[in-house]
Amino acid sequence: MDFNEKLQAKVLAVEEIIKKYLPKEEGVQKSLLEAMNYSFLAGGKRLRPLLMWECYQLAGGKGEVVEPFMAAQEMIHTYSLVHDDLPAMDNDLYRRGKKTTHAVYGEAMAILAGDGLLNFAFETACKAFSLENRGDAERIAGALSILANKAGIYGMIGGQAVDVEAEKRKLKLDGEKLLFIHAHKTAALIQSAMMIGVYLAGAEERFVREMERAGYAIGVAFQIQDDILDVTSTLEELGKPVGSDEKNDKLTYVSAYGLEKSKRDVERLSGEALTILRDGRERNVFLEELVESLITRKK
Amino acid sequence: MDFNEKLQAKVLAVEEIIKKYLPKEEGVQKSLLEAMNYSFLAGGKRLRPLLMWECYQLAGGKGEVVEPFMAAQEMIHTYSLVHDDLPAMDNDLYRRGKKTTHAVYGEAMAILAGDGLLNFAFETACKAFSLENRGDAERIAGALSILANKAGIYGMIGGQAVDVEAEKRKLKLDGEKLLFIHAHKTAALIQSAMMIGVYLAGAEERFVREMERAGYAIGVAFQIQDDILDVTSTLEELGKPVGSDEKNDKLTYVSAYGLEKSKRDVERLSGEALTILRDGRERNVFLEELVESLITRKK
Repeated sequence: MDFNEKLQAKVLAVEEIIKKYLPKEEGVQKSLLEAMNYSFLAGGKRLRPLLMWECYQLAGGKGEVVEPFMAAQEMIHTYSLVHDDLPAMDNDLYRRGKKTTHAVYGEAMAILAGDGLLNFAFETACKAFSLENRGDAERIAGALSILANKAGIYGMIGGQAVDVEAEKRKLKLDGEKLLFIHAHKTAALIQSAMMIGVYLAGAEERFVREMERAGYAIGVAFQIQDDILDVTSTLEELGKPVGSDEKNDKLTYVSAYGLEKSKRDVERLSGEALTILRDGRERNVFLEELVESLITRKK
Repeated sequence: MDFNEKLQAKVLAVEEIIKKYLPKEEGVQKSLLEAMNYSFLAGGKRLRPLLMWECYQLAGGKGEVVEPFMAAQEMIHTYSLVHDDLPAMDNDLYRRGKKTTHAVYGEAMAILAGDGLLNFAFETACKAFSLENRGDAERIAGALSILANKAGIYGMIGGQAVDVEAEKRKLKLDGEKLLFIHAHKTAALIQSAMMIGVYLAGAEERFVREMERAGYAIGVAFQIQDDILDVTSTLEELGKPVGSDEKNDKLTYVSAYGLEKSKRDVERLSGEALTILRDGRERNVFLEELVESLITRKK
């Protein structure tokens, strides 16, 4: 199997796992549960739970304790998209070719579906405490803290707030703030997935911190690559309009630092991530390929 | 000291505790943290953390482990108000005489401040795991599960969704759905506070279930009393317009079941709650007075 075939098979396996944790669409509050599941099942690369799973294996993990955390991590990612698409935020009616949650269920229900997914993420992660052979309660507690921290006001939500504020007040972003947004809005959940993966497998502190650094490098490189593609790609390659950032007068990494430095930084960051992943332990070749594919992608 | 003086002193003490857990207003995402703290500090009776504290003491609890949970419970209550007030929901510009969060910080930031408070509630509760003398990790894990469950899609958010759906689609509510809304939107967080209080103190399962029943009775009686006051009170007593439910053609417990049955049910539920609280263990007289004051209030 080549990488893409492996990827496809793994994404299917991850979907099987995380779908088990969705709520049943029944009861008086059925519409809410439908809206949540609609958002969750509207596609997506399942990158975060996949990274968590691969990192769990990289660190020698073998049990089921990672599974509720995989589902929780994807629920958090999903809720962030649902709220991001709201009229008061990005006001998007379509995502990945499907109607967004508020376009289908109305704005009020989309707010509640997002709240529901965020809350249910923690409810789901807590299920790890009642698994058989789940290992140590302290370790699950630590994973919960990572999940909450990276998703929260010092992680993803922090990045979103800075992004929103700049957008709404038409502030000129500087390179530093832009990096803050990339590091928090995008990289934080990737860090979370990778850190929790190795942590639940019993990794020592140093290994967890390495995953934090790798997740940062991957997340930031991914976003810089996004900015590069918006300039260098063709409509055909990208599948969406190119040059939209410049048209929207949006500060990007490329406009702040130029195309050459942007490309060099992607190289550097991706090199850092791969060095960490290869560093003196059992290799996980698929994980390395996955990281490479994320960063060097053409669309 | 009479009850009101005791209440005032206790609320102040509770505020001292829960305020310690607020985020410092600093860093790139400062505006977000300001919006969160503004919402949290905009007043309120601190009823849920107070109930949690009193129930913790009722069950013989003596440590600090309940404190992050008290703060977390109030953060969850606060976020639910912030999102409830949004233009897409109840569209309220004032609450308790102060401007609502979106009225001050804008709609996008209010959505994020609500998300931030919900996420930070779990991040804060997780801090219990790192306290000295915090007791058993399994017990903290159990308290986290109660918190998530009662706040979530099978608790408060579930009740909000049914309420919102009825409102937006102009559905005629029946008495059963109304009771579902009262039991979930209002009672669930009161149940959570009381259950976590005794649970963290080491109470056995039966005691926790009793608090669940008491919290249900208190929450539902509180809401029925609300509906009764809207009919029987005067503007002067209530401090807000009376008869507004009827004017808004809103189904209330009184319009569904009549004034007499409503009054009888408040009596019955409040009797149930007090019987549970007095049932064959150390008494907490203040807690009993607090429950009575909630249910028999005139405004």
